[in-house]
Amino acid sequence: MIVTDLRATPVAITDPPLRSAFGLHAPFALRTIVEVETDEGIVGLGETYGGEAPLAAFAAVRPLVVGRDPYDLTSLRLAIERHDGDRPDGWAWEARTFGPAALFSAIEVACLDAIGKRTGRRVCDLLGGAARQRVDFAAYLFFKHAGADAWGEVLSTDAIVAEARIMCARYGFRSLKLKGGVLDPDLEVEAILGLREAVGPDVPLRLDPNAAWSVATADRVAKRLEGALEYLEDPVPGIDAMSAVAARAPMPLATNMCVTSFAHLPDAIAKRAVAIVLSDHHMWGGMRATVELGRLCRAFGLGLSMHSNSHLGISLAAMTHVAAAVPELTFACDTHYPWQTEEVIVGGKLAIEDGAVAIPDGPGLGVELDRDALGALHEQYLRAGLTVRDDAAQMRTVDPAWRRHVGDW
Amino acid sequence: MIVTDLRATPVAITDPPLRSAFGLHAPFALRTIVEVETDEGIVGLGETYGGEAPLAAFAAVRPLVVGRDPYDLTSLRLAIERHDGDRPDGWAWEARTFGPAALFSAIEVACLDAIGKRTGRRVCDLLGGAARQRVDFAAYLFFKHAGADAWGEVLSTDAIVAEARIMCARYGFRSLKLKGGVLDPDLEVEAILGLREAVGPDVPLRLDPNAAWSVATADRVAKRLEGALEYLEDPVPGIDAMSAVAARAPMPLATNMCVTSFAHLPDAIAKRAVAIVLSDHHMWGGMRATVELGRLCRAFGLGLSMHSNSHLGISLAAMTHVAAAVPELTFACDTHYPWQTEEVIVGGKLAIEDGAVAIPDGPGLGVELDRDALGALHEQYLRAGLTVRDDAAQMRTVDPAWRRHVGDW
Repeated sequence: MIVTDLRATPVAITDPPLRSAFGLHAPFALRTIVEVETDEGIVGLGETYGGEAPLAAFAAVRPLVVGRDPYDLTSLRLAIERHDGDRPDGWAWEARTFGPAALFSAIEVACLDAIGKRTGRRVCDLLGGAARQRVDFAAYLFFKHAGADAWGEVLSTDAIVAEARIMCARYGFRSLKLKGGVLDPDLEVEAILGLREAVGPDVPLRLDPNAAWSVATADRVAKRLEGALEYLEDPVPGIDAMSAVAARAPMPLATNMCVTSFAHLPDAIAKRAVAIVLSDHHMWGGMRATVELGRLCRAFGLGLSMHSNSHLGISLAAMTHVAAAVPELTFACDTHYPWQTEEVIVGGKLAIEDGAVAIPDGPGLGVELDRDALGALHEQYLRAGLTVRDDAAQMRTVDPAWRRHVGDW
Repeated sequence: MIVTDLRATPVAITDPPLRSAFGLHAPFALRTIVEVETDEGIVGLGETYGGEAPLAAFAAVRPLVVGRDPYDLTSLRLAIERHDGDRPDGWAWEARTFGPAALFSAIEVACLDAIGKRTGRRVCDLLGGAARQRVDFAAYLFFKHAGADAWGEVLSTDAIVAEARIMCARYGFRSLKLKGGVLDPDLEVEAILGLREAVGPDVPLRLDPNAAWSVATADRVAKRLEGALEYLEDPVPGIDAMSAVAARAPMPLATNMCVTSFAHLPDAIAKRAVAIVLSDHHMWGGMRATVELGRLCRAFGLGLSMHSNSHLGISLAAMTHVAAAVPELTFACDTHYPWQTEEVIVGGKLAIEDGAVAIPDGPGLGVELDRDALGALHEQYLRAGLTVRDDAAQMRTVDPAWRRHVGDW
């Protein structure tokens, strides 16, 4: 089995005006749909970050992929790491997420999908087998502006509670995560307490201000939310500040910001900066790397959860397969999926029921590309004219005086 | 694909009277040959520790394996870990090596071999692909008594140099490891210096006294051997003593004794006790676990080498596949293989040329069981009457006053 073609198609998907510490989501989120085609006509699928930088990276890596046996992944990873100096510079605030790890990951997923389709096996089985047949996800609650979507403006406790009720009624979520770093920290405390009152004591809640706060604010918020949070995610920027907050906080701290690669773990572990790492196969170097991260977290007594960006069904399928294969991943995973109304896979959106996604049936990832949908979303990419994600610029179209808080709120 | 049978056949293989800090090798080394048969008639092979305890463990685990899809390994591992309380107690000094990790590993190897044979793929490819096509091994030099073998008595510097010359001439080894903890530590220093003089400055040398020495002796030996050793393996027992020696030693310390599972790593890393971990898929929980160990070692800046027991060709094939798949495994691996003259695979012993073993051709592990040889070695097991390994008892048949040094030499 030999790879005969590597295709990377940029797409833009309609995205609601969600808020975060980074600013405001633009009307479109960018993704890249990756196809690896083999000499037997099998097409393996992957999905990753969007925009110009990944496209340039896929073009650069093409000679390393075409002609390769799709099983021959470790040496591909090493070759990509060696060629890191040649890759185009990454992209705006997500630059850190499209290095060699992200590039390899997208190709690994597509190759594993091709292997699964060739052998009639699910990708989770190629990773060692499923530890669970259904993967729990959390409702990802956002403050948001009013827009073309059906959700309306959500900038108050009452509105976020209403959003949570709809999410839970529609998808059966049994864990809730609130994206914070948007309102005054005390207002976000009130939002969490409002959610806690609304959903009762048994539904895990999380709050993620994306490192907007100062250590003093994080200390104060953590104290006010004692007993209310399953974990507090990235209250402050950097391992040292996280370590300071963690020493006093009554709840565990989690991160997808100060620990985003294996190289960050030794310092974070030595400083006891985090109790829970948010994995993300797109960012951490692939599906096998995520299995390896699970083993490492187990060895060091760290918990494992999962991070998400705006994404389509290929990514959701991959997230589900890898989460199924990692026994240590016991926290409900993040997903933006309910916020996206468009889809690129045959049959439309994957079902989230009782807050969980079943491992898709069928070989590989268990999803097929809808080429009409791909074409339409690619046209949308060309029309949208976006080539990088820039939530801050988008925010300033609404509020020219807006500035991002990084550890100073 | 479903497992229809799990067979574990005890064998005894002729072993020369090799010395170590544990005592003296008995005339036979014990191994267990594992077969997993599928509903399609495919037989996957594994090899692990021998004697009674593994046999009891395989009998106990049989209901968890028969009827299972051989891809479904992670949930098998979790089930074995949960059932750990039910397993028979492990075995003499190797008790630590036949817990759930060893039991799972033997079955994982056989299942991966079956998957490889079913799909026409090498086991190393199922692990992510080969980072190298040939795996370097080190000559494993032993002090020894005279016996039925052709090597004669080796209890002096001159004799160990002669042994090394034969090993290197015959197999092309380009790294040498001396099993120490046998003679007075100063005599072992002389042996290393004699080897260094004999082989020149560019051949890596290692010394492994299996934790026989005191910290003071280790400090003294390390100082005397400055510049002569690639690494010093387990000079003293336990993470704390290793940490004390490591802080002063001019060469890196390695271990296969104070770090033998993932659970030992956090303390060893925090205390900087070792620079190099000796992996062993038999002991560490399998081939995928070894890949995961490689990732962990890379993250923490630890080197990775490989440990060996007396073994046959199925183990050598498995060691070669896993070492090929772990890019971080850059030190030449240990192997006792040249000391064993018998074999259980078709075609006889695998070749070691230029100090390396090529990944065996063919699907799975690339080796097939010679059933006549298996029968003969099983008969030998029954005749030998050994059911546990006890090098100390064997040593006392020669020297009734012998006692093992543990950190006190």
